[in-house]
Amino acid sequence: MPYETALAELQSFLGDRLSRSKSDRGLHGQNETWFADAPPDAVAYPETTEEVSRILTICSGHACPVTAWGTGTSLEGQALPVRGGISLDMSRMNRVLAVRAEDMQAVVQPGVTREALNRELRATGLMFTVDPGADASLGGMAATRASGTTTVRYGTMRDTVMALEVVLADGRVIRTGSGARKSSAGYDLTGLFVGSEGTLGIITELTLRLHGQPEAITAATCAFDRFEAAVQTVIATIQMGIPMARIEFVDETTAAIFNAANGTSLPRKPHLMVEFHGSETSAAEDARRFGEVVADMGGGHFDWAATPEDRNRLWRMRHGAYPACIASRPGSMGMVTDICVPISRLAEAVAETRADIAGSGIPGPILGHVGDGNFHAILLIERDNAEELKTAKALARRMAERALRLGGTITGEHGVGMGKTAMMALEHGAGWDVMAAIKQTLDPAGILNPGKIVMVNR
Amino acid sequence: MPYETALAELQSFLGDRLSRSKSDRGLHGQNETWFADAPPDAVAYPETTEEVSRILTICSGHACPVTAWGTGTSLEGQALPVRGGISLDMSRMNRVLAVRAEDMQAVVQPGVTREALNRELRATGLMFTVDPGADASLGGMAATRASGTTTVRYGTMRDTVMALEVVLADGRVIRTGSGARKSSAGYDLTGLFVGSEGTLGIITELTLRLHGQPEAITAATCAFDRFEAAVQTVIATIQMGIPMARIEFVDETTAAIFNAANGTSLPRKPHLMVEFHGSETSAAEDARRFGEVVADMGGGHFDWAATPEDRNRLWRMRHGAYPACIASRPGSMGMVTDICVPISRLAEAVAETRADIAGSGIPGPILGHVGDGNFHAILLIERDNAEELKTAKALARRMAERALRLGGTITGEHGVGMGKTAMMALEHGAGWDVMAAIKQTLDPAGILNPGKIVMVNR
Repeated sequence: MPYETALAELQSFLGDRLSRSKSDRGLHGQNETWFADAPPDAVAYPETTEEVSRILTICSGHACPVTAWGTGTSLEGQALPVRGGISLDMSRMNRVLAVRAEDMQAVVQPGVTREALNRELRATGLMFTVDPGADASLGGMAATRASGTTTVRYGTMRDTVMALEVVLADGRVIRTGSGARKSSAGYDLTGLFVGSEGTLGIITELTLRLHGQPEAITAATCAFDRFEAAVQTVIATIQMGIPMARIEFVDETTAAIFNAANGTSLPRKPHLMVEFHGSETSAAEDARRFGEVVADMGGGHFDWAATPEDRNRLWRMRHGAYPACIASRPGSMGMVTDICVPISRLAEAVAETRADIAGSGIPGPILGHVGDGNFHAILLIERDNAEELKTAKALARRMAERALRLGGTITGEHGVGMGKTAMMALEHGAGWDVMAAIKQTLDPAGILNPGKIVMVNR
Repeated sequence: MPYETALAELQSFLGDRLSRSKSDRGLHGQNETWFADAPPDAVAYPETTEEVSRILTICSGHACPVTAWGTGTSLEGQALPVRGGISLDMSRMNRVLAVRAEDMQAVVQPGVTREALNRELRATGLMFTVDPGADASLGGMAATRASGTTTVRYGTMRDTVMALEVVLADGRVIRTGSGARKSSAGYDLTGLFVGSEGTLGIITELTLRLHGQPEAITAATCAFDRFEAAVQTVIATIQMGIPMARIEFVDETTAAIFNAANGTSLPRKPHLMVEFHGSETSAAEDARRFGEVVADMGGGHFDWAATPEDRNRLWRMRHGAYPACIASRPGSMGMVTDICVPISRLAEAVAETRADIAGSGIPGPILGHVGDGNFHAILLIERDNAEELKTAKALARRMAERALRLGGTITGEHGVGMGKTAMMALEHGAGWDVMAAIKQTLDPAGILNPGKIVMVNR
């Protein structure tokens, strides 16, 4: 067995928290989308920062790969231990260490999920605002620079993580950032680790910025005859400075899939799903002004979600889009690819992508966080159909190239993982070499999530 | 003369844009505060990215230091070429390359100043929002991760810089970020260069996020009998989610200095200076709710700035605080030190600092961006008084230690430069070694602004 010495050393202090069982390895070798299973040689369940440090020290000494695992909900295979070694399951480090209501901050261990944190916050009047849909772990969300439906208002994990405790490849423990809202004290190491997908260090503690629960929330869906009108509505709303908390686009295919999955009766048309947060006065005013924009653009079929239950149903439907899409084509699996472009190029990006997918023969509903210029295609490919997989890969590649041509990025929020490493040079050129140089400096043995983001030790 | 070969090579293509005149060297060896003059061996005035690249390639080859110069308004000696070599004056790269109104972005060269950009934007309905007071260059503001009075609403340069073109020490040119509002495509190199104070690369182009000019603005000053009440007002306002565009604190000493410098008649008391941006309705509502908080806290003496002229006068007064303070003690120079703490510890931090300054015998007005937990002490020391300089240094050191004890940072916005390098280990511990490792990877010859932020090649 590879890494036998390392595993024996780890077992000596982790005991049965180093699991080599087939089922455990299998669970940590799966992913949410289309990537082949890649089980680790063992799964470690650390409970303290000191244990993480000891694990990395040992693994560095034996060149044993270490791939962190949160909830396994990433969409580009980030948590897959493709070179074997250890899956570092952070789920036992799941305590909320402090809620500092006056400072609107929470300090958490990486295994706390976003919903668990929000349950803990409910009585405080505060909320954690990054919402990727899945109930992901906060460590994983930081590592993948997650974002989601509320990012248009509250930002991504880059804007939300104030400070980190990180264990480096050689076992050193560092703290980045602080409880202050800003700092000019040197390089932004917090920002460097956020989005590094576990390739530069293992996050063992996070200080997160919170926001006040809004006094009032209004939400609605509205339909458009043409998707261009929906996109123009988004652009106009942003330019008017109407502070949307959410503004989501779903195409007519997705609307139909929602109806099938949820028993709703949305018109089979492109939709926007919106939400406004504020005082009673301002949320109502924002909704009113938005309604005027929609009317100007020829949209309509407003369906206001009046009660909290209606709103929850609305966003549950949105968050259930991925499984609903998969269910809409029995026997399929999803390649969920995302790009992000400047808002002025969004209509163009969506139009080209729609046409490209339509010509491919593969179903590919489109939806996304259009307030950020970010959208997803859920390419539904038949399991074990190599031809369709190839077609979908080519579609995804062309989407990424399109994003770059339009001044955007190959991924707005799903990250690099297995799926986009091959496209990194396209986006970053010599900047990708800089990333590799930083990786080699911080992880010279290449043990941290090898095969992701950069190509070193090839 | 040191670096003679490098200078000759540079002269061969820069011609008279490589200046060795005493006056030019003198101008680029000065600073705004108390650091000793440190003239470079020559000043280079590049006009293109290609020239910057060629300069760095040559300087790397000869280990000739290169320190970028914007407007020379930094407060911790960031632009001082303390190891000699070249001062790289970016003022000729001062074009606004594009204003993308639909995307609310501008693309600029680094020598454009913030006021020049805002003049260019006036007719577009957009504005650039980072406001450190000085009319600094945008390249310099990015390099020092500047922030200021409006950061509480619109963020720092970290939040504002979307993309960069950077020339690395070896002359390679890279692009970081994109025109998309977010990205998960690998390490956040944009964030790494923002705040690196010219030690990792030279910024040659910036894509900046803009905001809409508010429909309505309200501004006011109000006075408090006790500074604690002013600080509590800030905390309460933040927690109520009232979106302040500015909320500045000035102590009673500063209020008196304002009166002397501007002919105003502010009560000799601690003040808050506030501004709200929004629609007519929301700005008025925000101001009203803020007024209620102030009343609850026992503040008063509201002076509303009704007209744009009144508002401009108000903020000119605030931005003129530094020269006004210097003028208040003839023959003095200023050590302007800043710290930033979690908002819940702000009252404590200010109280301790006030007491410490009061016991020192040195005048030290306190003011700052309290909505961020960030405040400054302007320590007024007699020129050529070694004893007072020593006292001021000790005060600044204790302020930094206090910030760390209270969970904050040694500098919220003034940066590291010459003044705070010696305190970096206190804040970052082993994280400072990580910064040094990154520096050595990207600038192995150590030519980029040596002596700042990290200690390498000692």
